[in-house]
Order: sequence, then structure tokens, then C-alpha cells
Amino acid sequence: MTKIKITLPDGSAREYAKGITAGEIAFSIGKRLGEDALVAKVNGKLKDLFVPINEDSTLQILTFRDKEGLEVFRHSTAHLLAQAVIELFPDAKLTIGPLVEEGFYYDFDIAHHFTPEDMERIGQGMHEIVKKDYKVERIELTESEAKKLFKDNPYKIELVEEFHKEKQPLSAYRQGDFIDLCRGPHIPSTGKIKAFKLTKISSAYWHGDQTKQQLQRIYGISFPDKSMLEQHLKLIEEAEKRDHRKLGKELEWFNFFEESPGAPFFYPKGAVIYNQLLNFIRAEYKKRGYQEVITPLLYDKSLWVTSGHWEHFREHMFTLESEGREFAIKPMNCPSHLLIYKSKSRSYKDLPLRIADFAPLHRNELSGTLAGLTRVRKMSQDDAHIFVALEQIEGEISRVLDFTNFIYKKVFDFDFEVELSTKPEKFMGKIEDWEKAENSLKHALENNKIKYKIKEGEGAFYGPKIDFHIKDALGRGWQLATIQLDFQLPERFDATYVGADNAKHSVVMIHRALLGSLERFIGILVEHYAGKLPLWLAPVQARILTVADRFEKYANKIKEEFDENNLRVEVDARTESVGYKVREAQAQKIPLILTVGEKEESKGAVALRTIDNKVYFDVKVDNLLDKVF
Amino acid sequence: MTKIKITLPDGSAREYAKGITAGEIAFSIGKRLGEDALVAKVNGKLKDLFVPINEDSTLQILTFRDKEGLEVFRHSTAHLLAQAVIELFPDAKLTIGPLVEEGFYYDFDIAHHFTPEDMERIGQGMHEIVKKDYKVERIELTESEAKKLFKDNPYKIELVEEFHKEKQPLSAYRQGDFIDLCRGPHIPSTGKIKAFKLTKISSAYWHGDQTKQQLQRIYGISFPDKSMLEQHLKLIEEAEKRDHRKLGKELEWFNFFEESPGAPFFYPKGAVIYNQLLNFIRAEYKKRGYQEVITPLLYDKSLWVTSGHWEHFREHMFTLESEGREFAIKPMNCPSHLLIYKSKSRSYKDLPLRIADFAPLHRNELSGTLAGLTRVRKMSQDDAHIFVALEQIEGEISRVLDFTNFIYKKVFDFDFEVELSTKPEKFMGKIEDWEKAENSLKHALENNKIKYKIKEGEGAFYGPKIDFHIKDALGRGWQLATIQLDFQLPERFDATYVGADNAKHSVVMIHRALLGSLERFIGILVEHYAGKLPLWLAPVQARILTVADRFEKYANKIKEEFDENNLRVEVDARTESVGYKVREAQAQKIPLILTVGEKEESKGAVALRTIDNKVYFDVKVDNLLDKVF
Repeated sequence: MTKIKITLPDGSAREYAKGITAGEIAFSIGKRLGEDALVAKVNGKLKDLFVPINEDSTLQILTFRDKEGLEVFRHSTAHLLAQAVIELFPDAKLTIGPLVEEGFYYDFDIAHHFTPEDMERIGQGMHEIVKKDYKVERIELTESEAKKLFKDNPYKIELVEEFHKEKQPLSAYRQGDFIDLCRGPHIPSTGKIKAFKLTKISSAYWHGDQTKQQLQRIYGISFPDKSMLEQHLKLIEEAEKRDHRKLGKELEWFNFFEESPGAPFFYPKGAVIYNQLLNFIRAEYKKRGYQEVITPLLYDKSLWVTSGHWEHFREHMFTLESEGREFAIKPMNCPSHLLIYKSKSRSYKDLPLRIADFAPLHRNELSGTLAGLTRVRKMSQDDAHIFVALEQIEGEISRVLDFTNFIYKKVFDFDFEVELSTKPEKFMGKIEDWEKAENSLKHALENNKIKYKIKEGEGAFYGPKIDFHIKDALGRGWQLATIQLDFQLPERFDATYVGADNAKHSVVMIHRALLGSLERFIGILVEHYAGKLPLWLAPVQARILTVADRFEKYANKIKEEFDENNLRVEVDARTESVGYKVREAQAQKIPLILTVGEKEESKGAVALRTIDNKVYFDVKVDNLLDKVF
Repeated sequence: MTKIKITLPDGSAREYAKGITAGEIAFSIGKRLGEDALVAKVNGKLKDLFVPINEDSTLQILTFRDKEGLEVFRHSTAHLLAQAVIELFPDAKLTIGPLVEEGFYYDFDIAHHFTPEDMERIGQGMHEIVKKDYKVERIELTESEAKKLFKDNPYKIELVEEFHKEKQPLSAYRQGDFIDLCRGPHIPSTGKIKAFKLTKISSAYWHGDQTKQQLQRIYGISFPDKSMLEQHLKLIEEAEKRDHRKLGKELEWFNFFEESPGAPFFYPKGAVIYNQLLNFIRAEYKKRGYQEVITPLLYDKSLWVTSGHWEHFREHMFTLESEGREFAIKPMNCPSHLLIYKSKSRSYKDLPLRIADFAPLHRNELSGTLAGLTRVRKMSQDDAHIFVALEQIEGEISRVLDFTNFIYKKVFDFDFEVELSTKPEKFMGKIEDWEKAENSLKHALENNKIKYKIKEGEGAFYGPKIDFHIKDALGRGWQLATIQLDFQLPERFDATYVGADNAKHSVVMIHRALLGSLERFIGILVEHYAGKLPLWLAPVQARILTVADRFEKYANKIKEEFDENNLRVEVDARTESVGYKVREAQAQKIPLILTVGEKEESKGAVALRTIDNKVYFDVKVDNLLDKVF
């Protein structure tokens, strides 16, 4: 029997009989891997587990934990759905069933309108198919075989002709009596789909074209075990409760209007959050030697040609015309800061020069991609550009990392992961400058005791960068801070400095935004804290509730004390029950609820209820001022 | 002898013999008036003083203090200049000699290039013509007479033909041997021009058309006495020294770049001024019940159609296209605030609702009209819109006036004049609402003890308004605050509130900006204070100078104390002389210069020199913190 050599991802190699399948190899490695295996990568190509391997190959067994494993699993669930629909509604015509970010869907051409009861029955049907644990088979087809097989389905016929024209091989997958045109791969049997949920039904059109046949689309999500599905559904529910668009509107913090797509309106309370964040960053800037500037928004085309944005970013800019000149609204601040840098001759004594700017930026994003505060057309970044000499990179990056660490860890207590992206194949500048720069970044990370992964070759062509990804309270990842070295832009603008040697030198630019856009950061914070913002950011920090009318004077007296200390405090002296007033304050996500009555007034105190429902009696106002705020 | 009746501006009437001249009447009223008289308005029309009056007429004698008197005086000075040039350079061909804002000019076609020495000689020549005190005569001409008279001057021939075509009467003015085509009127004799100065020479083109003959333009200014000229020249010199564009650049506070016409770059020090002003207004807003919002800059055309800007203001807006929709960058905030107002149902309990916004605004001003910070394309206003019920107008306007008075008088100590503009002929809304509103404004002004002039009928068609004009340190007037009532815009947006009667009512909107645009206000402040800004606005409030290296530590220790108190203090520890360092700090317009040496360190004190050069020794740092800042 001929032997073949199978090389695994860890580099180890094993010998197997020719014709062995990836599924069998998985079991030979371990029972658990055999059971979890969904699909394989043979010589870098995705293949069904049941396809025989006939030559020396590299092999990777994929499970649900691998992105491609997950995708195949969900795609197989789409087939499972289609099979159940066909069994219940034999008249339905199958069209396509691809993946989406959250699961999968399948589009059906059927005269009958699916009802919630139908969805129940379809789910039942799917469960039965899972129980039967059909083996999945792959069938290679010629064009004529395919056309014969799907002769009753004009959609599949259209697809067959399309694939044939593009010279793609044709194949179908069978499980039990069900067969569907599909290029695969698929999981080996229907029994693996232990948990799924049909989430939504909507209408669609063949090829997304409103002039074509209307279809019914069923969405779903699936997992290899029930606990994963339950966890997912809980997360979805929690995420919906925390959705910043929903909370922003309910709490009257911010909102959007159709007249200005992708551009948030911050209402008075939202503007407090915005300005608190901005002032926090400003105060740090003062300590850390940054200098704020205020710059124009509209610039002549010539500036964007110099910066390269006209060539590479034009479709993302809003452009307009005035007096025969073309202008663009700025999508980023770098060119403005280069104009400032170049407005006078700079010496090595001026470096590092740290220029900060909160200017509103505009990007002409497709309206379909806009999503609350996290994907906008108008935003302000906590943006700064630092001009340094090559030998200052390490020290300055170290300072920027300290700043980032301070914000993420000390102020917001976010977990984060860090990636260093290095020189790509196509790069600009001298190789030894890149090496120096990359080493500087590594040293700076190590000096700050920040763990990082290296993404080899994934830097921009104009310089290496460091990215921060935070995890929010629901475990969702968000890319936030970017610290980007740039050798190129200063060169395009001929930005230099005079060194101690009296000669001209190229200056290096560091682009850095630590919160990213203020808008997006606020969106993330609202969801991370489920609206219960830290005291210093809360639009209203405390509300004083009277237990009866006669304590309004005392309540107002306390409020004045808070006002003098520049705190944000309200009085609720309405003749409602305390319980009602507490519930309202809680719904408003106010961190501190202070109740005042007979006893409190006599002691110069308040009863304090925190947002986590901890209650403290007889809290002296001075103590509150000293210790809580 | 026939008598005619002459009615004077005060309504009194006098009888004179038919054929009397306005000049003679002026003398009959008083010698001083006779001497000061330059020109007259007979039955509302400007006439030479020497023209006989032959019928009952109204008469106004104009002197240099009247705008039209001043204009005729300057125009006559242009003739004086032309006469002197022709006497010295008989080959020069006269073209035109009109007024400009600062004086007058005359354009000459002459091969010889005027030198500074020529200007001297021309000035001398003018003085001699003044001394000769030529009588000025008016000569009415037919077209053929005019063409004959000016046959050697193609420019005048062209003008004659033009005037004739437009059916304008033709006339010339003669003084001595000099004669010029002119519609007049003119002052009666050259002797009245007691003081003048030729200020500038530049090149020009006939009809401003670069394809036509190049001309030489001589500019000048003139006054009826020398002290006025001297005062004027001093003012010009002082204004040039204080020019905010010059100071802004020298002090590195702000600057402009060709890439963004009319849009200032505030450098770090300028941004401090900007943010200090903004935070001052913010702090007042908090006390006065205003709520800040942060709003988008780009809005769909439909919003501007609703607001009426698309019809009336479109050419001043920057417009652009995205995904087939037309957008405009906002030139003002009102429509944004109406969207917010209308985002929920409003009750009488919500009013007055005061919405404040510092959003950058853009107006597509002609690039030729842009001038430093005082005429820009991009600006932010200390803008707010107040929504009130009709009966709340008086109370709310009273509060706005108190706010304005506080800023102008208490904070900046500006003198100001106030105008109330009332219902114009064409107005919108009910006449009784206008009456109520105007009475409310009057009462509010009176309650605040603010003197005001009424500008009858000069209100906007959508509501009456109050304007504030301040006077700066050079006596120049600036229109600043506007408080504008608006009945119309809320109606266009159908903005209402539910009254205590449970019925819907129209809401009234108050547009108000007290500093106006922050940019323009900063420009005015810089010139008003000649760069020596009040302590709270100064970008650097104090600079600590060491008398020798060894006091650097002490200087830094003091600086830290100031830093902790959020003050803006620098240390100059260079090994330069104290005198040199003081001069540099003064040139930087730093309000407080603190010198530290042996004696100061031993006493925990500083030597203090103020920006007005007052010196105080042994000032304790605590005292500085308590009493100066």
C-alpha cells in the first residue's frame, strides 16, 4: 500500500495510507479533534473531511473555533434549513443560501407566505434531520448533468450557466433525499448541528434586483452545542439593551436626523459627555506637552494633491467648488498640521513638536454603511501629530504608549491587545530607517511592559504602526488607538528640521489618536457601561429627591453647594412618591441618588443610593464632596 | 424783487430774494456755518453752494461732518491733485478720480513713472493751488461742446459718449486754468482744502481691464484742517501697529494660508485665547440656563428649502453633492436648532428653551472681500436660539440684555450704542404681535437702563431686533451683538408648544450672538488692546526670568505652583541679560514678568513687572496667586 506524508500545522509529519480522508486523520490524532472536526485545509485549500487524500500534503483540521470552520458550519446549516423547507413545502424553489456576519440565510421562491407557525414547523423539521444524522456527499457534475438534475428550478439553471461560463467546476451536495447545487465544502454529517435558531424572516429579490422575482429570506444562526447558542442569544439580548442608538435616544443624549446622514446631534446631556471627554484629553495634553491648534475644514485641491489624498482618498472626501477652485472638506488633520509645521523654519530644539486638534472631520461614507456613532460621516478625533527626529522615535512612542495605557487601564479599565505591524513588501524609505524604527517601537512596547503580537509585513507602505484593540464588557473587540509612524508625508511636504549639525534633516511624523473618534468612543462607552457612565462623565452626576415638599429648600441649598464645586446636580422636588422618583432617576442612569427628609436635614446629611443600588444613610454633604466626587 | 421760502432741516423757514445761493444762505445763518459749508442739499438733491436758488426749497447745508460733505470735499481734492499733476506734467492725460473708503485717487495716463520726488513736487503744487484759492465754476455742456473741450483726451471723449448715450447731462468744473469733465458738485474754492496727504501710488488699468491702457494711480486723503489730518495719520499709524493680522502673525497667535482662504489657523497660543473665550461664555451659559448642543455641519437641501436659505442665501453657502443628494455646509445654526426643538413635543413648561452652539459655520464670501479675522469664510459664533412664548419675550430679552451688558461693560469695559429696529413696511405676522414685541423690547431696554435709538422701519420682515455697536480704543465702531426676534422661522418649521390651556401655540424664536463670531471678536480684541490682552485671556500669563543660572530651580518651583493653579506660566532661564529677557517678554505681550534672584529666592518672592511697566519688589508668590490671578 502506498504511503503518503501528511505535514501538520505544527510542522510535524505523519505517514498514512494513500486515500485516507482528513476526517480519519483527525480521529487518528485524537478522538476530540475527530469529533470537533468540520472541514479541512489540504495544501492550503478548503476540502470536505471525507475527500480522500492521495499525495503528500499539508493538512489543517478546522473546527468551529476557526473562522473558516465556523463559516462552513453555518453554510451547512443553510442547507439544513433548505432541506426542512423543501420537505414541508415541496413547491418552494431554492435559490441561494450564503453567510452573513451574524449567521446565514436562505432565499426561497414560494407563493405561500411563511407565518410564525411555519417557522416553528421548519425548526422542528431541521431538528429531525439533525437527529437522522445524514451523511453529506459531494457529487461532481458536468454542465448537462447539472442542468438535468435541476431542470425544475430556473434559479439553479441560471447559476449552472453562470458557473459554466466562468469555467468553474460544477458540484452538488446531497444529504438524505435533499440535493443542492453547491461548490462546498460542507461538514460531514447533519448530526453535528446541535444548536440553531431561525432569527428573522424578510423579503428579498433574486440578485437583489427589485425588477426580478420577490423571494422570502429566512435568517438563522447555529452552533455546535446548546450552551454556545444560549450564551450567544443572551449576548444579543444584552447588546440590544445596551445599543447606544437606543440608549442615546431614550436618554436624550444624542440622535440622528435624516437631513444629515451619519452626523450625530449631541443633545445637551450628550454634549456634556462630549465636552467632559474632550476636556479630560485637553488636561492630559497640558501635562504631556501637547499644543492644541484650531484649523480650517475646507482646503484647496492642491493641498490634497500634495498629501496624496486626492489620488488615494478622493471618493471618501466631500468636494465642492468656489470661484472656480476645487476644495475638499478635510477627512483628516495631517495636511493642516504640515502647513503649520512648515510655516516657519524648525530646529532640532523644537522637536518633538506635538500638535493636537479636535477639528470636525468628514468622510463621504456610503449611507448604507452608516451605523449610529460607530460609523459616521462627521466626527472629531483626539488627534495629534508629533514631529520627531529619527532618534527620538523610541522615547516619544514610549510616552505615547504611557498615555494610551493611562487612558485604557487607569481611566477606563479596558482589557486590550496590541499589535505591531511591520515593513510590508512594498515600502517607502531606507531599509535601515525601517529597522531602526521597528526596533524603537519594540523597545518602547517592552519598556512600557505592554505585551504585543507582531503582524509581519502588515505595516503601511509609509511606516510601521501599533494598534490597540480593547474588549468591552460584553467581550466584543473594538479597534481603538493607532500609533502610526510616517516617513512619507513629511517628504511629500518637504518638511525638515535643522539639526545640531546645522544641516537639514527629514522629520518623522507620528499620527496618533488614542480614543479614536470621540463619537465612536462615546458609542462604545455607552454600550460598555450600559449607559451607567463613570461619575466624571455622567451628564447628571446626582439627583436630589425630596421626600416631601417642605424639604425643597434644603435640597436646593445642597444643590448650590454642588454647583459651586462645578458638579452637575439636579433637584426633583415633585410631589411624587420617593419610589417613583428613584425609579425615574435610575432610568436616567444617574450615578448618585440623594434623598433628603426630616432626619437628613437635621443632620446636614443625605441618604445616598448608588447606581448599583447600594444605600448609605446619613452621608454628610462634605463627605460626599470630598470622597465621592 | 421776488421772494422765495427756504425751509431748513429743523423745520424753520426763512424768506430770501430769488437767486440767492446756498453759500450766501449759510453765511446769513451764521459766519461759522458759512465758512464750514462745502455743498448743499436743495430739495433733497446735492448742489454746488454757488448755484442760485430760484424757487421755494428745502435746504440743508453740508459740512465736513456730514458724510456727503466729506465725500464732495475729498472729490474736490482729487481735482486739486489732477490740476497739480497737469501743471507739472502737461503730457499726462486725465482719466477718472473717484472716492474710496479711505480718501480718493486719480488715475493718470502718462509715460513717465512717478517717483517719490515727483510726489513731493505734486504735493507742493497742490499747496500752491490751495493758496491761490481759485473759485470753482460749473459749466453745463452739450455733447459737441464737451467733445470739443476734451478733444485731446480719448478717455474723456469715451466718457462724454457714454454719458450722452445714458442721457445724462454733461458738465465740467473749472478752477484757474484747470478744467475737468465732472458731474459735480464741488466745494466752492480750492482754498478750503487746508490739509491733505498723498498716501500711495500704484498701477491701474482703464476700466480696471488688464487688456486696456495701463495707468498710474495716486491715492490721497484730505481734511479741512491740519489737526484733523495729524490725528488721522496718528490713528492710521496706531491702527497699523495694532493690525491683528500683523500681530497675530508676529506673536504666532494665528495665521492664514492660501490653501484655505478666509479660514484662520489658530496656533497654540491663539487656540488658548479662543478656548478661554469659549469657556468664559460656557461658564456664563451654565449660570444663565443655556444648554449647549453639538450639531452636524452638512445638511440636505430640503432643510435649506424649508428654512428659506436655499432661496435667499444660496450663493453664500458652500454646496456639494453626495449619492445624488445636494447638501450645503451650514452658514448658521438656526435650522439645526429647529430640528432639535421639533424632535419632541414641547410644552409651555419647557420654555424658555435656550439652545447654544459653537459649531463652525461657513459662508462662501468673495475671496476679494476677505480680511483677516474680521471677514472670514469659516467662523464659530457664541450662538444661541431661545424659544419663548409671546408673553415671555420681555423677560427673556431683559435677561439677554443683562448678559450683553455684563460682557461688554463688566468684562471688557467697551462703550457701546444700541439701536432698536422696528416693523418695516413689508412685515410678516400679526400687527398686534409686532406691537407687543416692540413694546417688550423697549421695556426690556429700559429695565436694563440701556439708552437706545429707534431705527423706525428697519427691522427684518420677520421680526424687530436690537443691535449693539461697540467703540474700540481707537474710537472705531464695530457692530457686535444682535438680538433678533423671529416670528417666521418657527412658522416655516411648524414649531409650536402646548400651552397651559392644552392648545397648540406658535413659538417665538430669539436669535442672539453676543460676541458675534469668536474669530472676529478676537480680531477686534487684539486691536483694541494692541495685543496686550487681559490676564485671563493672555496665552502666556506670566514669564519667570532668572537673573542667573542658579535660580532656575527656584523659577521652576514657582512655575509648578502656578501650574497647579491652572495658570499659564513659562520660565526663561537662558543665560541672557535680564534686560534682554524683559524686552523679549514685553514684545510677546506677556502681562506679568516675574524676575527671580538671590533676594527673591531667600524671601519666597518675585520682582513683578506689569505690562504697563509698573514694578513691584518682593511680591510673595501666595499674594500673586490670591490677588493678581
